[in-house]
Amino acid sequence: MIGPKMATMLGVVMTDARLTPESAQTALRAAVADSFNCISVDGHMSTNDTVLLLASGTACDAPLAGDALADFQTALDEVCQELARAIPGDGEGATHLVTIDVTGGANRAAAHTIAKTIAESPLVKTAIAGADPNWGRIVSAAGYADTAFDPRRCTLHVNSYLLYRHGTPVGFDAAAVSAAIRDNRDTKIELDCGSGEASCRFWTTDLTAEYVRLNADYHT
Amino acid sequence: MIGPKMATMLGVVMTDARLTPESAQTALRAAVADSFNCISVDGHMSTNDTVLLLASGTACDAPLAGDALADFQTALDEVCQELARAIPGDGEGATHLVTIDVTGGANRAAAHTIAKTIAESPLVKTAIAGADPNWGRIVSAAGYADTAFDPRRCTLHVNSYLLYRHGTPVGFDAAAVSAAIRDNRDTKIELDCGSGEASCRFWTTDLTAEYVRLNADYHT
Repeated sequence: MIGPKMATMLGVVMTDARLTPESAQTALRAAVADSFNCISVDGHMSTNDTVLLLASGTACDAPLAGDALADFQTALDEVCQELARAIPGDGEGATHLVTIDVTGGANRAAAHTIAKTIAESPLVKTAIAGADPNWGRIVSAAGYADTAFDPRRCTLHVNSYLLYRHGTPVGFDAAAVSAAIRDNRDTKIELDCGSGEASCRFWTTDLTAEYVRLNADYHT
Repeated sequence: MIGPKMATMLGVVMTDARLTPESAQTALRAAVADSFNCISVDGHMSTNDTVLLLASGTACDAPLAGDALADFQTALDEVCQELARAIPGDGEGATHLVTIDVTGGANRAAAHTIAKTIAESPLVKTAIAGADPNWGRIVSAAGYADTAFDPRRCTLHVNSYLLYRHGTPVGFDAAAVSAAIRDNRDTKIELDCGSGEASCRFWTTDLTAEYVRLNADYHT
């Protein structure tokens, strides 16, 4: 969690664009789906997260529509993703910010479920803390996600190194991949499920002894 | 996980009772539902768990039926629960074996989902490692379980101390509860949901820095 004594997360995005309440709500829902709903530090859902979009309308007379509204959506997506990513980026005891790109999903919900399950596996998270290129933990997490997944169709890269392809690990330079994890705060996991066109980008942290210390020492 | 280089878990129960294949399968399914399917160390599902029941039939001529079969079921349940409980009891780095009793569930699936979600919350598990009587983490984990849950109807005891009742924490001696967690390897969480008659008993571990060390230092 982020700050359980007050509120867990309060996000406020302000713009001087003029928006109808309906298009503001639609734009924010879309932006949140790909940002604040795609992060996890430890999977423990919070009781009081809030994201607000405030639009003063001082920049223009008519509400945004068409291309201008699409441009606004792009900008809002970027802002929300930057804010959302900063949360696991600042996660308790984290030594890595992990970006998980699931592609080739049968549909968006499947891609999201697979990405979230990988992100919340303590074994995946400790492997990254220990700079272990442990393809087995990543693929098996995808396998136990509550959606169809066929390891024989999937391809896995970690920090651009190919580790696993179509049901079998490939030969790779374990020392080089381990160094690439150890020496970078950012870790990139890319899993192509080979089952469709849907994708999901998800952000998480590694799991360190410092996370345990911070959350075990905190007393109510 | 338990031993990822060989097989994660191989359970074999042997009996000299005579059983038909059908009643053996039915009895084992029932026993496993309340034992091996009610444990979790870290929520990372395994690829190759197996439980076998071997019945030689040397003890009696006719297959068990009626009361004798019911007695066999009771004995099988006990054996499976003892074996299953030993797995988190020996979990990586664990300093507590946590028994979670969810009662008052709307149905068995709901009680199981709530118990499993509490068992797999890193915040609940670190709280127990730190001997923190953190009712908020337990009740909020029940709240984000993927099933209906009304905190206004629930009652929570930890190691027999009442911490929370009908939507509000009660006054309790935090130092005494903390000592009761710290000084016992067994921790008991009892959550009455107040929504029905179903129940589930689930076993898990706490989450310690030693768990992280063991799983981060292990390299493929």
